[in-house]
Amino acid sequence: MAGKRKRALQRSACPIANTLDLFGDKWTLIVIRDLIAGKRRYGEFQSSPEKIPSNILADRLRQLEQIAVIRKMPYQRRPVRYEYHLTEKGADLLPILQAMTKWSGQHVAGSWTPPTWFEALTPESLKRRK
Amino acid sequence: MAGKRKRALQRSACPIANTLDLFGDKWTLIVIRDLIAGKRRYGEFQSSPEKIPSNILADRLRQLEQIAVIRKMPYQRRPVRYEYHLTEKGADLLPILQAMTKWSGQHVAGSWTPPTWFEALTPESLKRRK
Repeated sequence: MAGKRKRALQRSACPIANTLDLFGDKWTLIVIRDLIAGKRRYGEFQSSPEKIPSNILADRLRQLEQIAVIRKMPYQRRPVRYEYHLTEKGADLLPILQAMTKWSGQHVAGSWTPPTWFEALTPESLKRRK
Repeated sequence: MAGKRKRALQRSACPIANTLDLFGDKWTLIVIRDLIAGKRRYGEFQSSPEKIPSNILADRLRQLEQIAVIRKMPYQRRPVRYEYHLTEKGADLLPILQAMTKWSGQHVAGSWTPPTWFEALTPESLKRRK
């Protein structure tokens, strides 16, 4: 469609490359982390300590919706405002973030210890969440 | 040191952000995948189906060595040539790649099914490998 961003090409059929084709950047999984932590609104994502630039946030939300990892739902009319929610496909990203958390805990000095609820979380519990 | 690339700044103390500060791009974890698969030499990394550009490969190998995720060892003199090996810190990245593999298997049409040995691999078995 005219004006629509083209999907990134798949560089190969390797499942690791396929994941990196979609999430291989510094920001996309930060937004997923915030959604897992319960954030839903644009301003909430912007308030995270990494200070995601607004143009990058808008771009990532659009891309994530396009690949059905999140869905957006209006919570207000005039002007319309949206909340963002993880889909089941998005909830299944959780183990990637948990593995990253474990690696940093082992190897990056000064990394926060994640809260207990985060380590205990499962994709299934995210899928049941309202 | 003059001429040395500065380490990426840590955007926060979040362990997920810390991992993405180091590996949040489309290529670095492809090189880690190849090392896990047993590739060791520059030309072997270049022969992978994703066709990593040579300047990016050289840059990533330098960065990975700098953060002690890989080490390089000469296998030939005149001219000197190097092989690259995962350190223990590098071997501990394996669960991140395994989680990515699982996600693509669930959600990306046409993704290869990984070989059984890959799913059965553990960081400890990588650390024991010569």
